[in-house]
Amino acid sequence: MQITRDKWSKNFSEWFDWVLREGEFYDYGRYPVKGMGVWMPYGFKLRQNIISIIRNLLDSTGHEEVLFPLLIPEDLLRRESTHIKGFEEEVFWVTKGGSEDLDVKLALRPTSEVAITTMENLWLKSYKQLPKKYYQIVSVFRYETKATRPMIRLREITTFKEAHTVHETYDDAQRQVEEAIEIYKKIFNNLAIPYVLSERPEWDRFAGALHTYAFDTIMPDGKVMQIGTVHHLGQNFSRALDFKIQKKDGSLDYPHQTSYGISDRAIASVIAIHGDDHGPILPPSVAPIKVVVVPIPAKNEEGTQQVMKYSIEICEMLNKNNITCVTDQDTEKTPGEKFYIWEIKGVPIRLEIGPRELASSTVFIKRRDNLKSYTVKKEEVVNKVKEVLNEIQEDLRKRAWESLKSRIEYANDIEKAKNILENNSGIVDVPWCGSKECGLKIEELTNARVLGYPIEDRKVNDKCVICKMNAKTVLRVAKTY
Amino acid sequence: MQITRDKWSKNFSEWFDWVLREGEFYDYGRYPVKGMGVWMPYGFKLRQNIISIIRNLLDSTGHEEVLFPLLIPEDLLRRESTHIKGFEEEVFWVTKGGSEDLDVKLALRPTSEVAITTMENLWLKSYKQLPKKYYQIVSVFRYETKATRPMIRLREITTFKEAHTVHETYDDAQRQVEEAIEIYKKIFNNLAIPYVLSERPEWDRFAGALHTYAFDTIMPDGKVMQIGTVHHLGQNFSRALDFKIQKKDGSLDYPHQTSYGISDRAIASVIAIHGDDHGPILPPSVAPIKVVVVPIPAKNEEGTQQVMKYSIEICEMLNKNNITCVTDQDTEKTPGEKFYIWEIKGVPIRLEIGPRELASSTVFIKRRDNLKSYTVKKEEVVNKVKEVLNEIQEDLRKRAWESLKSRIEYANDIEKAKNILENNSGIVDVPWCGSKECGLKIEELTNARVLGYPIEDRKVNDKCVICKMNAKTVLRVAKTY
Repeated sequence: MQITRDKWSKNFSEWFDWVLREGEFYDYGRYPVKGMGVWMPYGFKLRQNIISIIRNLLDSTGHEEVLFPLLIPEDLLRRESTHIKGFEEEVFWVTKGGSEDLDVKLALRPTSEVAITTMENLWLKSYKQLPKKYYQIVSVFRYETKATRPMIRLREITTFKEAHTVHETYDDAQRQVEEAIEIYKKIFNNLAIPYVLSERPEWDRFAGALHTYAFDTIMPDGKVMQIGTVHHLGQNFSRALDFKIQKKDGSLDYPHQTSYGISDRAIASVIAIHGDDHGPILPPSVAPIKVVVVPIPAKNEEGTQQVMKYSIEICEMLNKNNITCVTDQDTEKTPGEKFYIWEIKGVPIRLEIGPRELASSTVFIKRRDNLKSYTVKKEEVVNKVKEVLNEIQEDLRKRAWESLKSRIEYANDIEKAKNILENNSGIVDVPWCGSKECGLKIEELTNARVLGYPIEDRKVNDKCVICKMNAKTVLRVAKTY
Repeated sequence: MQITRDKWSKNFSEWFDWVLREGEFYDYGRYPVKGMGVWMPYGFKLRQNIISIIRNLLDSTGHEEVLFPLLIPEDLLRRESTHIKGFEEEVFWVTKGGSEDLDVKLALRPTSEVAITTMENLWLKSYKQLPKKYYQIVSVFRYETKATRPMIRLREITTFKEAHTVHETYDDAQRQVEEAIEIYKKIFNNLAIPYVLSERPEWDRFAGALHTYAFDTIMPDGKVMQIGTVHHLGQNFSRALDFKIQKKDGSLDYPHQTSYGISDRAIASVIAIHGDDHGPILPPSVAPIKVVVVPIPAKNEEGTQQVMKYSIEICEMLNKNNITCVTDQDTEKTPGEKFYIWEIKGVPIRLEIGPRELASSTVFIKRRDNLKSYTVKKEEVVNKVKEVLNEIQEDLRKRAWESLKSRIEYANDIEKAKNILENNSGIVDVPWCGSKECGLKIEELTNARVLGYPIEDRKVNDKCVICKMNAKTVLRVAKTY
């Protein structure tokens, strides 16, 4: 049995706002600057857990964490011309210090390629120091003119993990792109987030990149959200900033770079994708609280106190076994009110402990995701909870992947593609000849965005939906965030 | 035996710049924005370890971590009039988004009292929710017009831990001030940083506070640096932002607040205070690498390889016991060159492992702080290293406290005070009647800054150095950063 997903899928925006506020994840829309929200304590812990997963995977693959200044001088940001064109209209500028006008305008970093390359130019001299992999987790800023949305389209993106790497050759950088993709797959698997991996078409690359590979997921309303990107920058930035290294053969040359990023959207997708009409269901891998104990009052005060004591004992047992547990000791709320609160917070397991459990030295375990319940002996609780947490993690992943796959369709007719997107959203694969002209036409005729094409060769025995020439691959089309 | 401290004390600025750069802690002065530096990977790890200590102490005392937006609208910042006066000339202003002028100027947060109080006003309604203790670790910005210095006087302070608390009564807030002071003492003890705790005089309080308590330490050059402050804000901010809560007696009233901060300067002091002419000596409690193994080559290649193998084995043994160890496997540098590098990085213990150690299954342990050495059997290495790390931690603390105490003098004559400060710096306590007029006169005549007076009552059987009335306490005077 599962809780319905009507509100969740049909009024997703409303559902998401409700969960963020009521679940005390993120306060959005009330801080007096547009597009900027506040991480509340519970949401902050979820964010920290997700950051930990990202950090561990990066650290264990030789990435080194650094921290660069927020501000980038205008002349530096203008050094790579495609780059500044891509960001120019989105940059917040600091122009005053106290009452003085600054000589040079300072950008709030929209991303840090030029800042980091500037220092790499001082730090890295020889191929012997390569590959070099830096990353930082910082706020980045975009003066968004589109409608902003909590965690999804912000003017301050507070959780921007940006990695920047340097390599001797183009191929080394390409191998790094592949490593980054593998790391991102692991991150999303850990978060139980399903994804589609595409190479973005040339007209939608990161400003300054040779290739952009992107992870997209499908949100409850069927719209597609980009959740991670990996860029092969080639020598564009090293050349623009005159950054050379000595190569193995003794010559001096511009090194090849990559960059890759993940943002608050990873957190948004964890909250959104596993939800239902009662709230989110957080994967145990990142849930700040894995188990909540709700004591069920007895008929008399003494019994109620004994239940409370037993509840706390069980909870401590779990905490000692590194399973973060909280006992809801509030005496004013009913168990039903407590269920409601902890469901909006997405806690994966609830223990209900009342006089019956106390009398029989048992515990009643309830899964948040499929409502299955188990009554187990006290001494079996720790093992059973561990087992159930693992099952929830797996089941969330499975359900999310199935849901994603069910929303990808194939259409070899542009009208059909348009209809699917308008009625069901999701992703539509259309056969495509590979030309930019046809790609742009597909966007225009479907009134949707092109995500790109699969990285692996995908044989398509069909004709391009626009020019009717033989298709080389499919182009993925979707309504996007 | 100890390494000399001549460069360290006589040319401290130069020493500090050299250590930050050569030790690869922090790259300063080369990033193209004045007053903003780059945390390099090694320095970043030290910073993370220090942040961990701060986080653990705050989390375990009921503080909740949050994250607020960087930007504060001008009208909000102006709500508390003393506050804005204190910061007005130091604020960086964002005035443009893309090519558009913003309607309202946005400040890069210089501190977050008004931002946080704005949201507390939405979150907190009743005394039942109090005390509430929030904190965040963020960058804050000050448009400093004084000469900037790495980690010490910055325009971007990247490691600003700011706590903000809310209480029903003045006394509750005062108790929170005391808790904060105890937490800060623990933090500095953990970092082996000695301090003097003073209440700042009324003319040097935090802008908007009723009371400011400050931790100061003495740097190698004898100048005093503020390393932590705790403020009783009373109802100043809650009143300015019309933030009321329901009290126990049912009435509505402005709650009382405190705030307290620690910054990059805590990290600067850890690097600076325990140093000598070879570099810093990092306390084992926060050293990113606790032990470095330097293999000493044998006379032939085979012997050298065996030494390397043995070195790695020892290092792994330490790592398995949670003692972070690195083996310097570079084959181009001599052991002497390696000693130099790891000393500038401040690694507290060096193991020298050569053919002799290999042959006898021993390890040669060398302390960074006092050069003491020990030869121990392989199976005793882990325990001995643990023991030595503890000793180093204690000895660094002791030495630093002794040095601080030796630099505090008493002078009941203003000329004498001035002479001491001009020749030896440090801190001079002068008897003081308690009046602002005399306090300001003391600053003027000594050409120094007043730190404040002891928190505990300090009986002084002497006359005020200015007005010759009976002294109430001592005023601490120093040349400051």
